[in-house]
Amino acid sequence: MKVSIVGITGYSGLELVRLLNNHREAELVSVYASKEIGTRLSDIYSYLKGICDLEIQAFDSQAIMSETDLVIFATPSGIAKELAQDFLAADFPVIDISGDHRLPAEIYEKWYQKTPAKQSDLDKFTYGLAEFTDVKGKKFISNPGCYATATELALLPLIKAGAADLDNIIVDAKSGLTGAGKALSESSHFVNVHDNYVTYKLNRHQHIPEIVQELQLFDKDLQHLQFSTSLLPVNRGIMATCYSKLQKPLTEAEINQIYDACYADKVFVRMQEELPELHNVIGSNFTDIGFAYNEVTNVLTVVSVIDNLVKGAAGQAIQNLNLMMGFDETEGLLMSPSYL
Amino acid sequence: MKVSIVGITGYSGLELVRLLNNHREAELVSVYASKEIGTRLSDIYSYLKGICDLEIQAFDSQAIMSETDLVIFATPSGIAKELAQDFLAADFPVIDISGDHRLPAEIYEKWYQKTPAKQSDLDKFTYGLAEFTDVKGKKFISNPGCYATATELALLPLIKAGAADLDNIIVDAKSGLTGAGKALSESSHFVNVHDNYVTYKLNRHQHIPEIVQELQLFDKDLQHLQFSTSLLPVNRGIMATCYSKLQKPLTEAEINQIYDACYADKVFVRMQEELPELHNVIGSNFTDIGFAYNEVTNVLTVVSVIDNLVKGAAGQAIQNLNLMMGFDETEGLLMSPSYL
Amino acid sequence: MKVSIVGITGYSGLELVRLLNNHREAELVSVYASKEIGTRLSDIYSYLKGICDLEIQAFDSQAIMSETDLVIFATPSGIAKELAQDFLAADFPVIDISGDHRLPAEIYEKWYQKTPAKQSDLDKFTYGLAEFTDVKGKKFISNPGCYATATELALLPLIKAGAADLDNIIVDAKSGLTGAGKALSESSHFVNVHDNYVTYKLNRHQHIPEIVQELQLFDKDLQHLQFSTSLLPVNRGIMATCYSKLQKPLTEAEINQIYDACYADKVFVRMQEELPELHNVIGSNFTDIGFAYNEVTNVLTVVSVIDNLVKGAAGQAIQNLNLMMGFDETEGLLMSPSYL
Amino acid sequence: MKVSIVGITGYSGLELVRLLNNHREAELVSVYASKEIGTRLSDIYSYLKGICDLEIQAFDSQAIMSETDLVIFATPSGIAKELAQDFLAADFPVIDISGDHRLPAEIYEKWYQKTPAKQSDLDKFTYGLAEFTDVKGKKFISNPGCYATATELALLPLIKAGAADLDNIIVDAKSGLTGAGKALSESSHFVNVHDNYVTYKLNRHQHIPEIVQELQLFDKDLQHLQFSTSLLPVNRGIMATCYSKLQKPLTEAEINQIYDACYADKVFVRMQEELPELHNVIGSNFTDIGFAYNEVTNVLTVVSVIDNLVKGAAGQAIQNLNLMMGFDETEGLLMSPSYL
Repeated sequence: MKVSIVGITGYSGLELVRLLNNHREAELVSVYASKEIGTRLSDIYSYLKGICDLEIQAFDSQAIMSETDLVIFATPSGIAKELAQDFLAADFPVIDISGDHRLPAEIYEKWYQKTPAKQSDLDKFTYGLAEFTDVKGKKFISNPGCYATATELALLPLIKAGAADLDNIIVDAKSGLTGAGKALSESSHFVNVHDNYVTYKLNRHQHIPEIVQELQLFDKDLQHLQFSTSLLPVNRGIMATCYSKLQKPLTEAEINQIYDACYADKVFVRMQEELPELHNVIGSNFTDIGFAYNEVTNVLTVVSVIDNLVKGAAGQAIQNLNLMMGFDETEGLLMSPSYL
Repeated sequence: MKVSIVGITGYSGLELVRLLNNHREAELVSVYASKEIGTRLSDIYSYLKGICDLEIQAFDSQAIMSETDLVIFATPSGIAKELAQDFLAADFPVIDISGDHRLPAEIYEKWYQKTPAKQSDLDKFTYGLAEFTDVKGKKFISNPGCYATATELALLPLIKAGAADLDNIIVDAKSGLTGAGKALSESSHFVNVHDNYVTYKLNRHQHIPEIVQELQLFDKDLQHLQFSTSLLPVNRGIMATCYSKLQKPLTEAEINQIYDACYADKVFVRMQEELPELHNVIGSNFTDIGFAYNEVTNVLTVVSVIDNLVKGAAGQAIQNLNLMMGFDETEGLLMSPSYL
Repeated sequence: MKVSIVGITGYSGLELVRLLNNHREAELVSVYASKEIGTRLSDIYSYLKGICDLEIQAFDSQAIMSETDLVIFATPSGIAKELAQDFLAADFPVIDISGDHRLPAEIYEKWYQKTPAKQSDLDKFTYGLAEFTDVKGKKFISNPGCYATATELALLPLIKAGAADLDNIIVDAKSGLTGAGKALSESSHFVNVHDNYVTYKLNRHQHIPEIVQELQLFDKDLQHLQFSTSLLPVNRGIMATCYSKLQKPLTEAEINQIYDACYADKVFVRMQEELPELHNVIGSNFTDIGFAYNEVTNVLTVVSVIDNLVKGAAGQAIQNLNLMMGFDETEGLLMSPSYL
Repeated sequence: MKVSIVGITGYSGLELVRLLNNHREAELVSVYASKEIGTRLSDIYSYLKGICDLEIQAFDSQAIMSETDLVIFATPSGIAKELAQDFLAADFPVIDISGDHRLPAEIYEKWYQKTPAKQSDLDKFTYGLAEFTDVKGKKFISNPGCYATATELALLPLIKAGAADLDNIIVDAKSGLTGAGKALSESSHFVNVHDNYVTYKLNRHQHIPEIVQELQLFDKDLQHLQFSTSLLPVNRGIMATCYSKLQKPLTEAEINQIYDACYADKVFVRMQEELPELHNVIGSNFTDIGFAYNEVTNVLTVVSVIDNLVKGAAGQAIQNLNLMMGFDETEGLLMSPSYL
């Protein structure tokens, strides 16, 4: 099948190029951006020379629909909701990596401080947390956020099993700088990030409602979540450190059972005996999860790690594409973590 | 006055050299280690050429007592409790930066998995959290641990004011690699640390009982603390991110009042309007503290940052020395953070 | 075909696992090390769970020869020359990533300060700089060193064309820490490497004679090379900055012609218009090369970058395997650089 | 004496604040910038709370001259040459850290691509390489550039002694990111710098003519210099790796003699037996120098390291201030390197 990417020059767009390069079913045939039109991608990003020499084009929904089978939006929030409309009208498959189609209109407006998509458009989208949502045959997928993916995969088994004290869940999440995107800012200036650790958007991160919404699917009583986000001086990787009081003490075996019930047959979620590190998953589509229970405080600590650009964005998009189209879920995604 | 350092080649020992270089009252006159005896410190550490050219000597308690006025132990845990005995017997002033004299014997044994000091020796020591303990005229000071300093300074005002829900306090603390010491290990190998973030000793860190013990001085009902420690890929700096449910909702003004009651007259603790970053304090003796209250979850997040080698070790030792001796508390310690 | 790796727990061994995971012709069937025998690789390196769950075995040349078609040595220098002997005697294919079979006996002894392999064994090996050596059908390949690969690919076209002033070539090469190997040492301790830049083995690096030997194949008059090596605070990547006076001034077009004559048909060497950065090649088998000529000083600066673990070790080994066996040269190696 | 800083919000300005904080003769009394007027410095840079709470003022030459004794320009190039004019007219002491007063007008114009200062203004300035220039009693000092300082101190003894082959000197210099300044740019975006090493402005760096001009003072026959600059993924520090063919082979003792002749009585230049690392000098005003001679190639490698913000900018400015005013040269500058 043939695929287009809109928003090629962002980090998610570029990561899609890297991943699709090894995909045997999906071929990348056209790339779109709002600038550098007419330039070959590899003339701007010389590392892609010989990997992807496509020319960047100005967005054209008709061309995309006539030449390809699916479009992936890797644009910043606020763009996809406009550009996707032609495809929705034509019932043409869309995967949106941005946050534009994940939340109900009024919640989006509150947390993103932007005009939302039409509710009728939003209703067409399925939130594709690949391990929990059946997206086969679906046409419109909103791809989960990076922090949201790491947090949801860490907490959902616990919520589903009714094991967590829903009033006492605290998530301390950390991300590398690619998660902050490509725009220049004081907070992404090398000198300000290096040798530093900065907590930002405390209680205000736009992934909070997305996580709460997804967790509520498994327990409506969950009302809120204490969630903080910080910037690690690395390029890739998210760790979500999740602290949850338990309804009642559990043995290690019981906790393992709770997680295995969800993940025993999931290729891309690996339960680890030790708490996982960022190195476990960099470059790959894996989510690694480990935990430790403290009998003294009755707090279960669950740690999940992902590569924010892969499982947290481009990789999960391809996983969703595979599942939508009925390809092998792992097609193009079984590369080893680079580890070092 | 004249000062000796035992354990000169560790990171705390070297940091003492850096700080004492600018002290107008205390002069470093002899340095001791268990190896490299007879070599000039600056022959091993060429960066100290012209700053400290003292020769490393083999430990000799009599020489120290005859030539100096105070000894600082910057040895690893397990050493000071042996070497300090002569000084205790002679009532000669000691500041111990190691963990050997902070905990009751049986608790030390459990958490450090080492033979403790004699309880009679332990009884002579005062735990010198400089902002909360009056050490003037004291002879034997156990200097607080690095994680402990950051956590205690963040939480004590809240505990003292009775504002925290004592059953729901979670600390997610992060440290740079100098906190892990100088010994070579897989966990301090560059390739394993760089681009990584590793949580270690979860629920087992030896600073936990020290923190609980100190907090209990201000509220005996505090029973435990959920505490985790991770390694940041930086050399210096600790951030303690402390989450506490509150007994009842508080306004920002009320929270400020609680902290100002403790720190308004403390030079080395600075309340900041924004959550502080590591850069705020690197190279300096400051502890910077900020907070954010979440009305939805009723969780107060308090963030404190210190330089683990300064306020978390050598700097606080000198602050204690200043207070013990009646010098200006800030003598030798008012250097600006290096920031970059 | 079936492949074994000896020395699986070193960085080159682990990188071979990552790369062979995507190879459609070569299957990794057994892995050997001198410790951790009987443990599954993924029990030690949890990031490999599901990628490579082979059990580590004690070295056994007969088992390797009966069960596989080729063995790759990823051992430290000094080991392969012993372990390879059975395979040489049996005419069984070997690729040696270590430095044991690259140099004549007496030169090896001088620069490695170790007992060399027998000269008769050495004579059987072909030095496999894949872009310049025809290894098709060869049985015994010594894989070039990482610094050597970067430097030779940068300089050979110039030497071959007779354009360089052979008495005035200076190479300032820099490497990430994986190049220093996995052994714990002061020089690979995180605190000593981070925020630092350290020049080591000046005029004494063991890759010097290897480079000189290879360059002399193209011009016997080349007598020596000024070569320095430094450690960059990164995990992966080598940059060789090569300064050469020219025999006579050349235009940019002429220099391009010299390089194109060597590389126009080479997939893995990419001439770039700008000086390449480490990011250009990380994770991939590419060598990117750029240059700038200074008319005032008559110095041509040629900059080459590689991923030391891929083109500098495991990747070039697989490229050699592909060429030896008559597979497509690029099989398993056309992954995109990770860039970020 | 009282001092003003113009351009307080740049890295050199902030570093001056850090250093003057410990100066016993010079008091910082007013700070100027082109934005954030009326805000306290510590309200923008919270790490300075209690260290420097001065309010930022709009530039006012009359106020500066009436209230202080000396002004330091820490502005970007292109600004000081305008703002300094009132002070020159009034014969009021100026130290200019920017590049505006280091070069003859036509050379400045060529390399900085900006309108130069008037030649009559330029003629009033003395280039203050503190170890080689007698600035006592001088009124107008142009402070050397960071790369220039490191390179000149490494090469001058050799040039002065007539030992270098002037046609064969190559400098491969590397700097941390603070050297690139505070302006946001692609080349200072964290993601682009981290895990990378980038060579820039090859043969075009504006410090080249400054270095050549200074070296020519000691040997007029020196015509040019091959000079390259790269960005290291660290915040602070410059290493200049200087390769020079020698006129004739020299022994280690002879080379030591050449350097001692220049530096034996210079506090801030330390000859080291090993090649120095960045860690040697970070946070301090020291320049550490080491060398290695290669008999085979007849190339002497001289390595110098400085903290670009201290000896390469603010520190040398204060050293010049001390010397101009007849204070002890080391006043306020004898802090130990932070090392870690």
